[in-house]
Amino acid sequence: MINDFQVKLERYAALAVEVGVNVQPGQTLVVTAGISSAPFVRMVVKKAYEVGAKNVHVEWNDDTVTRTKYELAPDEAFTEYPQWRAQGWEDMAKDNAAFLSIIAANPDLLKGIKPERIANANKAAGIALKTWRSYTMSDKVSWSIVAVPSMDWAAKVFPDVAPEQQEDALWDAIFAATRINEPDPVASWKQHIETLDTKASFLNEKKYFALRYTGPGTDLTLELAPGHIWISAGSENAKGDIFVANMPTEEVFTAPLRNGTNGVVSSTKPLSYGGNLIKDFSLTFKDGKVVDIQAEEGLEVLKNLIGTDDGAAFLGEVALVPHRSPISDTNITFYNTLFDENASCHLAIGKAYAFCIEGGKEMNEEQQTEAGLNTSLVHVDFMIGSAELDIDGIRADGSAEPLMRGGNWAI
Amino acid sequence: MINDFQVKLERYAALAVEVGVNVQPGQTLVVTAGISSAPFVRMVVKKAYEVGAKNVHVEWNDDTVTRTKYELAPDEAFTEYPQWRAQGWEDMAKDNAAFLSIIAANPDLLKGIKPERIANANKAAGIALKTWRSYTMSDKVSWSIVAVPSMDWAAKVFPDVAPEQQEDALWDAIFAATRINEPDPVASWKQHIETLDTKASFLNEKKYFALRYTGPGTDLTLELAPGHIWISAGSENAKGDIFVANMPTEEVFTAPLRNGTNGVVSSTKPLSYGGNLIKDFSLTFKDGKVVDIQAEEGLEVLKNLIGTDDGAAFLGEVALVPHRSPISDTNITFYNTLFDENASCHLAIGKAYAFCIEGGKEMNEEQQTEAGLNTSLVHVDFMIGSAELDIDGIRADGSAEPLMRGGNWAI
Repeated sequence: MINDFQVKLERYAALAVEVGVNVQPGQTLVVTAGISSAPFVRMVVKKAYEVGAKNVHVEWNDDTVTRTKYELAPDEAFTEYPQWRAQGWEDMAKDNAAFLSIIAANPDLLKGIKPERIANANKAAGIALKTWRSYTMSDKVSWSIVAVPSMDWAAKVFPDVAPEQQEDALWDAIFAATRINEPDPVASWKQHIETLDTKASFLNEKKYFALRYTGPGTDLTLELAPGHIWISAGSENAKGDIFVANMPTEEVFTAPLRNGTNGVVSSTKPLSYGGNLIKDFSLTFKDGKVVDIQAEEGLEVLKNLIGTDDGAAFLGEVALVPHRSPISDTNITFYNTLFDENASCHLAIGKAYAFCIEGGKEMNEEQQTEAGLNTSLVHVDFMIGSAELDIDGIRADGSAEPLMRGGNWAI
Repeated sequence: MINDFQVKLERYAALAVEVGVNVQPGQTLVVTAGISSAPFVRMVVKKAYEVGAKNVHVEWNDDTVTRTKYELAPDEAFTEYPQWRAQGWEDMAKDNAAFLSIIAANPDLLKGIKPERIANANKAAGIALKTWRSYTMSDKVSWSIVAVPSMDWAAKVFPDVAPEQQEDALWDAIFAATRINEPDPVASWKQHIETLDTKASFLNEKKYFALRYTGPGTDLTLELAPGHIWISAGSENAKGDIFVANMPTEEVFTAPLRNGTNGVVSSTKPLSYGGNLIKDFSLTFKDGKVVDIQAEEGLEVLKNLIGTDDGAAFLGEVALVPHRSPISDTNITFYNTLFDENASCHLAIGKAYAFCIEGGKEMNEEQQTEAGLNTSLVHVDFMIGSAELDIDGIRADGSAEPLMRGGNWAI
């Protein structure tokens, strides 16, 4: 049993390194991870050197240290972000490093903390890391996000499981979602990417003018950016290396037109943001902009997020995910966007990915804005899919055709 | 029992924060630590915020990740150090941050690694961090080093103790050496610093021209820098805050004259350097410079260290420690310089501390050199004290008086 787990863990590390960020010989790999994920991080580091990495730079963090800061530091500590640190990320991106985030977030980490502190800290980081983010958000460099369980996270996902089995239960769910249980995970991923590519190609041929969403609490029309491109799992960096930015991934996604969203949309899963949960919320849009915000839980956190800057009140991503998928079939709410967004159609408020429109990778931010893309310091996905969601594709002539029915593909 | 340990641990964290680096309200504290030291680090972080720190920046590392790099990375990875990281240390020092190193080093961490890799990495770091080190080595900023056990380190120190009790045994030894077992550790430290100050004052009045060491394998004469100042435990940063750079500390120390050392000196304890042990070694000096190197173990590592740069072949510190001290009374070889150097007279090869001569804190490196101080990228202490070591103080007129006999103060 232990051996079996070790084998899966090593497969997962290999998948993250070889398929996720796809580390190339001579490249630097930057890993961000919590210290509770050390056993997995060490496997990733070893694997990266084995495939030829020149250097693996691990940026460790610790939830307890983070929480202590939010509880005890003076307010001014949350309005600054070290310039040298931002410079470091930028230098490494310029040097074509690959960036792997290993997340294990406790969804309640910052529960009870003043929302202004969280908003200020995220904004300060967003401003400082803007240049670095332009590298990942244009796919100039390879980047990927994978998750490993932490005790707090596992307890949140499996409150009815005995405490000593919660982490194992979450590992099982993660291994299932990332195809680690299959005989040849790398081959399974290749096949999976091809399947998603088929959907993206279909949508790219259709060139819909807009999408219309209808469901409980949702009646939204969203125009797509001119020249938009639907993207699936496999991305390509500036050097031509293929990487997979999210593992798992079940989505195809593109960029909406900044000012083209109207109507109301309701969340269908809790959103974990900034160490807090935002639940049962709805957003009303007029000409692209959020004009009303409702939430049963986490309203202040959501308001602060949307108030980060001008662009945080507009959409930056539209993603289609069938309601039936390996992840949603587990029937688990992960309280973690990496999983929950891949079990559900979703949108993102904030910055659009430049690579989602023709020629976008080469555009600076001003050109992106002219092309109709939203820009912002933030990019936060939220889940809107369910078994009761219908989506129509709207052609330029205003005619509609069914795209999803009852949450699943109608094509 | 557990409670008692927790109480001691919290006292130790408080001592490190309030006496060691003496964190001031509004100040940033930079902590470097291994992830295995997390429980202690978290206490330090909490304590620092409680006494008013604006921010605590923790730079984590992991022995396994470090070892994996030395085993698997290509050679070129060891000749570079990230500029942005060096800039970060410099920025924080400029901003008057305090620097606390929490060490838990495995003395055999890099055993079997090619010595060139270790030497190259240390040299690259030394060059990149030169400006930052000028802040600590001139006491412009507060800095301190404390130790906590790790499993590997404890196993090395207590090979005959049952494995599950080794860490506890090392904690006991550390608590004893740092006066944590006494009813009021902060008061004990104040008294201890006063006692050491008495010795430093005596030596500062004597203004010896040189020291002469005689013992088994040792016959050395070492001239002191003109205007030298003997320093004891309490240091003062540029703002006038008092801090204690090493905990424990039993030494009084000053700077030798760069070109004034002649004769031979033999080590009396193993030296842990760069993850390797160097044992039973001797150095022969002519006009300050090492002209012969012998070692029973670790010769290559020692040769690489002394070959780092010109100054690595000259002395930068001379420290007097009685053979009878709380640490040496434990009769434990710690395989860790922080402890072993405080149970034994020692010297350091490499850079001298600028604050060890009159006006030194305000001198740039060129002025320090003119004043007779050694400069180098390295500063590495090694132990030469024993129950058989005699030291004479030599006056300017050549006359001698006994300073230490049989390893203990003769004054």
